[in-house]
Amino acid sequence: MRPLKLRMGMVGGGQGAFIGAVHRMAATLDGEIELVAGALSSTPERSRASGEALGLPDERNYGSWQDMLAGELAREDRIDLVAIVTPNHLHYPVAKAFAEAGIHVVCDKPLVHTSEQAQDLVRVVNASGVVFAVTYNYTGYPMVKQARHMVRTGQLGDIRKVAVEYRQGWLAGPLEGNKQADWRTDPSRSGLGGAVGDIGTHAENLMSAVTGLELEAVCADLTAFVPGRMLDDDASALLRFRGGAKGILTVSQVEIGGENDLRLRVHGTKGSLSWRQEDPNRLLFDSLDAPQQVLTRSGPGLCGEAQGATRLPAGHPEGFIEAFANVYRAAATHIRAKAEGREYTPDYPTVEDGARGVRFIEKMVESSGSAEKWTVLD
Amino acid sequence: MRPLKLRMGMVGGGQGAFIGAVHRMAATLDGEIELVAGALSSTPERSRASGEALGLPDERNYGSWQDMLAGELAREDRIDLVAIVTPNHLHYPVAKAFAEAGIHVVCDKPLVHTSEQAQDLVRVVNASGVVFAVTYNYTGYPMVKQARHMVRTGQLGDIRKVAVEYRQGWLAGPLEGNKQADWRTDPSRSGLGGAVGDIGTHAENLMSAVTGLELEAVCADLTAFVPGRMLDDDASALLRFRGGAKGILTVSQVEIGGENDLRLRVHGTKGSLSWRQEDPNRLLFDSLDAPQQVLTRSGPGLCGEAQGATRLPAGHPEGFIEAFANVYRAAATHIRAKAEGREYTPDYPTVEDGARGVRFIEKMVESSGSAEKWTVLD
Amino acid sequence: MRPLKLRMGMVGGGQGAFIGAVHRMAATLDGEIELVAGALSSTPERSRASGEALGLPDERNYGSWQDMLAGELAREDRIDLVAIVTPNHLHYPVAKAFAEAGIHVVCDKPLVHTSEQAQDLVRVVNASGVVFAVTYNYTGYPMVKQARHMVRTGQLGDIRKVAVEYRQGWLAGPLEGNKQADWRTDPSRSGLGGAVGDIGTHAENLMSAVTGLELEAVCADLTAFVPGRMLDDDASALLRFRGGAKGILTVSQVEIGGENDLRLRVHGTKGSLSWRQEDPNRLLFDSLDAPQQVLTRSGPGLCGEAQGATRLPAGHPEGFIEAFANVYRAAATHIRAKAEGREYTPDYPTVEDGARGVRFIEKMVESSGSAEKWTVLD
Amino acid sequence: MRPLKLRMGMVGGGQGAFIGAVHRMAATLDGEIELVAGALSSTPERSRASGEALGLPDERNYGSWQDMLAGELAREDRIDLVAIVTPNHLHYPVAKAFAEAGIHVVCDKPLVHTSEQAQDLVRVVNASGVVFAVTYNYTGYPMVKQARHMVRTGQLGDIRKVAVEYRQGWLAGPLEGNKQADWRTDPSRSGLGGAVGDIGTHAENLMSAVTGLELEAVCADLTAFVPGRMLDDDASALLRFRGGAKGILTVSQVEIGGENDLRLRVHGTKGSLSWRQEDPNRLLFDSLDAPQQVLTRSGPGLCGEAQGATRLPAGHPEGFIEAFANVYRAAATHIRAKAEGREYTPDYPTVEDGARGVRFIEKMVESSGSAEKWTVLD
Repeated sequence: MRPLKLRMGMVGGGQGAFIGAVHRMAATLDGEIELVAGALSSTPERSRASGEALGLPDERNYGSWQDMLAGELAREDRIDLVAIVTPNHLHYPVAKAFAEAGIHVVCDKPLVHTSEQAQDLVRVVNASGVVFAVTYNYTGYPMVKQARHMVRTGQLGDIRKVAVEYRQGWLAGPLEGNKQADWRTDPSRSGLGGAVGDIGTHAENLMSAVTGLELEAVCADLTAFVPGRMLDDDASALLRFRGGAKGILTVSQVEIGGENDLRLRVHGTKGSLSWRQEDPNRLLFDSLDAPQQVLTRSGPGLCGEAQGATRLPAGHPEGFIEAFANVYRAAATHIRAKAEGREYTPDYPTVEDGARGVRFIEKMVESSGSAEKWTVLD
Repeated sequence: MRPLKLRMGMVGGGQGAFIGAVHRMAATLDGEIELVAGALSSTPERSRASGEALGLPDERNYGSWQDMLAGELAREDRIDLVAIVTPNHLHYPVAKAFAEAGIHVVCDKPLVHTSEQAQDLVRVVNASGVVFAVTYNYTGYPMVKQARHMVRTGQLGDIRKVAVEYRQGWLAGPLEGNKQADWRTDPSRSGLGGAVGDIGTHAENLMSAVTGLELEAVCADLTAFVPGRMLDDDASALLRFRGGAKGILTVSQVEIGGENDLRLRVHGTKGSLSWRQEDPNRLLFDSLDAPQQVLTRSGPGLCGEAQGATRLPAGHPEGFIEAFANVYRAAATHIRAKAEGREYTPDYPTVEDGARGVRFIEKMVESSGSAEKWTVLD
Repeated sequence: MRPLKLRMGMVGGGQGAFIGAVHRMAATLDGEIELVAGALSSTPERSRASGEALGLPDERNYGSWQDMLAGELAREDRIDLVAIVTPNHLHYPVAKAFAEAGIHVVCDKPLVHTSEQAQDLVRVVNASGVVFAVTYNYTGYPMVKQARHMVRTGQLGDIRKVAVEYRQGWLAGPLEGNKQADWRTDPSRSGLGGAVGDIGTHAENLMSAVTGLELEAVCADLTAFVPGRMLDDDASALLRFRGGAKGILTVSQVEIGGENDLRLRVHGTKGSLSWRQEDPNRLLFDSLDAPQQVLTRSGPGLCGEAQGATRLPAGHPEGFIEAFANVYRAAATHIRAKAEGREYTPDYPTVEDGARGVRFIEKMVESSGSAEKWTVLD
Repeated sequence: MRPLKLRMGMVGGGQGAFIGAVHRMAATLDGEIELVAGALSSTPERSRASGEALGLPDERNYGSWQDMLAGELAREDRIDLVAIVTPNHLHYPVAKAFAEAGIHVVCDKPLVHTSEQAQDLVRVVNASGVVFAVTYNYTGYPMVKQARHMVRTGQLGDIRKVAVEYRQGWLAGPLEGNKQADWRTDPSRSGLGGAVGDIGTHAENLMSAVTGLELEAVCADLTAFVPGRMLDDDASALLRFRGGAKGILTVSQVEIGGENDLRLRVHGTKGSLSWRQEDPNRLLFDSLDAPQQVLTRSGPGLCGEAQGATRLPAGHPEGFIEAFANVYRAAATHIRAKAEGREYTPDYPTVEDGARGVRFIEKMVESSGSAEKWTVLD
């Protein structure tokens, strides 16, 4: 018999916040999680209005995350997990408080503002033993899991070169004032990185998750192209990985025509992979002296993890929400496994992945300001 | 303030039925509908096992659709709507019984086996005044709504030519015995049409919904390529529409490599449109003496209906489930409108659309057996 | 040591004729053929002006094809072959006269106006023993040769279904008066078929060359969409081949946005092929239970004929002219083989292929006017 | 009346040299140039054998380029231009000698080994007044000319970001010993650069030609991935242009699956362009708040230079040879203009472009060895 649904609370994600609705659809898609509580906005009034619109019961429609934490801890049927979907600057205090209270966490990215905060959070999570997932949702795509599998099983040979790019254009003009653009371009809420934080960390996570390589040094050039912008809206970098592989990265939010164009190429001694987020159900594989193969989601030749991450037959497109839902589903599986004392190897981005992303932002910013070519990641 | 969720029961869609899970994800994606009752399989035992796995409460986990209908009618908090996701031969009795009882219906396609049944159902639905949606889900895609809008607003001029194709390959070998393949190739459960019923009706609906044209005559050639197969697994036809437009249709379930490759092209005196289900977030528009335009979901230049049918920014792929959910969301909107006495123009496939699909199957089969070129749709 | 270049004369193809320049580039691309004589237009004055512009020597710059034939026969260094690139109605008398005189012929398509003419020409060619190539240039593409090879060697199994489409839009408005459009829409110069003759015969040749199947019956619907047009500008048909395969064909010159969009799909019991003229360097191959393969020109896995028909490494795009040149090169090879008494199996479209194309036009037109479903090709 | 064909001699390009055949097809495609003399290989015997195979007359089939220069200067009907298609190390002495003798030159790339040689050659060319074209053939594509036009006419606004990539995989394994690979990986014949010289200079030329931007500084990382290789087979760089634009470049000859995958993206304040060499007949244009436009060769909306560089209607693919031929045709036009005293603005890559390419190689190599981030181009 099927276990009861996990109970979820949400911090942030109120009316007008695009990503809050995505988290709710993703969390509930598989019928494993239900939203039962929320502190959805930055003032009590707006929080409650948002909660009403979502049909939250009054007693669990909180005015602040602090109230929610206290209120839920006082309940028998307290929430199993909290989803943190606030602007970046609130990730740290909220995540720390809930994790310390033993409540599992799903947190948006980038994890926190500084490596110190990140290391503190890693410590707290390890001490409390909670499940902690970071919604680097792009690694939730089945074909990304397939790519990771093909690298791990040696189908590409030794990796030589990695190229990752993430192109958007929505910040090409001065959008400050727009709710989505606003906090992303404000250092106090967004952190050190602009584009490098908002989308660069996704690129880093995708690259690392698929290749398993560790960054050794970066050589970055960050730019704020739009006059008056306080954070980078474009970043490029040369990359060196431990073991000798090289890489190149470019991310931008001012490339007009770019919608959400995240792409990864991995080249090894035996083969190459190419994947594109806007065409996520396909993965291109080239090997020496053979025609290119086009692997498709739910098509022939996929590994178990890719098969397990899909819900539909081939040719029935899955997209962003389903990939996002895979992060939630893996976290839910881990939460249940912990409850039942079963082993589970996390197949979602962890707090350590989140901390590595914060480090990446710091080093990209540091390198961009340096006259030396290589800034080493220690 | 947001209204309560609509309560839904489901007939069919038990364990192992791919489309049942799709209906559940689609129905609940937007938080407007919740599943509260079910008669999920063809025997009481399997029905209840499926219901338990889904967490249905015992008292609403019925052994048969007849029990569900009786049980729900006896409840104060009875279901608002029923989703019918059984093999085709059960659509008619179930849909008729629930509609007559005043319960709204979302029914899978093709609607029923014969035009007589279809006309009877149309009569019942009109008499009872229930909302009745048929899950021709492909017309739920935002870019299909955009295509329809561009035809309606004259951007293509007068339509001259329509080409629709739907290519699958999963029945290329003798798959009978497989649960999905089984009933689809059995005339007693599937009806007169094989491929022409299973996917041909989707093609017909897509073509009709976008162009608004009425079929005048068909000239069809149906084939069962796999030895021993009792229903067509491939169908092609020449089409004539009232007003002089021409068309061509080909659907197949034996074209190896075809995943779910539904495509539509519409050509008018001023421009052309092209859309492909496997790449659903884009719509190609050609006009005289101008470069091709690539319209994208949530991109610039979209009509209100296309904008209203999307949940994510451009470049964040939406897929099959979201399009399917748009049928449910439109039905839910209509149900609420009726409850509140508001006007609403259905933006979902209606029982009349379903009846037209049944007529299409009959005429395709009739034409295929005829030595005359044109079989007229009266 | 390399033999001298073959000497070519040309009939038609004067100033302003797009296809004449193509024939000249194609014929001379490989340095195997040189243009030495011409009767390039329909009046002596225009013929000579065109010849001067091309640098033809005065004594071989003829005012009419009759003069050219007589003049060349009187020379020691007479032309080895004639290229006939006139409007269609002149193909028959010119081809017949040169073939009877023992001069090899490369003739544009469609071959002639009627099957009677075609059969007469077949007879003349066989009697005289000349090389006779018809410039169905699309079968000159290397990836088309590869497709043919894969069908012949059984990689697709038994062919079940063939789909061919050829979409253009340049006649969507009333272009009569334009030199290119003019004769193509005039029955006295173009023959029975409009689009079906101009591009439908290419589709027929492509389909036949790749599959080796013989048409048994057609069921066609031809339309002249543009008011006042005397010949079809759009044609669709259901096809039946000897042995049980089915097919579908649609060609149009009024589909706005269509540039030169010739596509072929072939589906068998073991696999499928898909090729598109506008992306000619790739061939898609699907087989049961394996990912799609993308074969590329000069890439791995190609047959000898495809390799022999390419001039550049993979990734260096070849196009229309090179494919066209392959017809000339194969004809030149055959001409040399005959001169040297060597065997050579023609790898170019022959006069019989041309005759079959004429028959195809006739039967398409006949079927379109018939109330019976199937018009049999005897 | 049409002028006589220009007479061309060729140095290098004998049997087995892929690029020699390309030059010959490109030079003669339009009937403007004929090959009349050659010193085709590195020994007299092989030179003459190659010349015989091409049908060169004995008296102009030379054993060395020195003989050819002397022999041709002694003739009344001497060659108008020489094509230099040798390995790189011979470009300098041959080009200098012919230019000094007043014979026009078409020279393969990269121009020479060092900037000193390049500057000397620029001086010689300017002094002698000969036409000197470098076969950076990719800028010969019509859609590249269209891209250049759109940048020049401000359709992109101010350029912010340029991304160029050139991916090949044919040197992924140790191919040394193969004729094509051999000299390219030998510093004495290839020069300082491996991939950066062979294909990086094409990338540099494409980027510079389209944007008109001047490189200010590079930050490069060159790698020889294949053990034992003496020159780079992979190179990536961050770029800074005068005026504030940024860029990123990556070229590789070890990315398996890469055929000849040269791509350019240009992003400005008003719009973006994207072009890919393997799909050369299309150019993607994105502008603020409008759907993407797909411009096509010979399609609507093209500038005069793009129209003038095409030979076929839209949809009839042109490729590598035609683009290459555009360099020759422009050089021929300039040669005739000089002969007739007409003005002509060179629309082909000049000796100055070639010199800039040599400088680019030197600075990329210098930067790769430097611990400083930016290596300035002075």
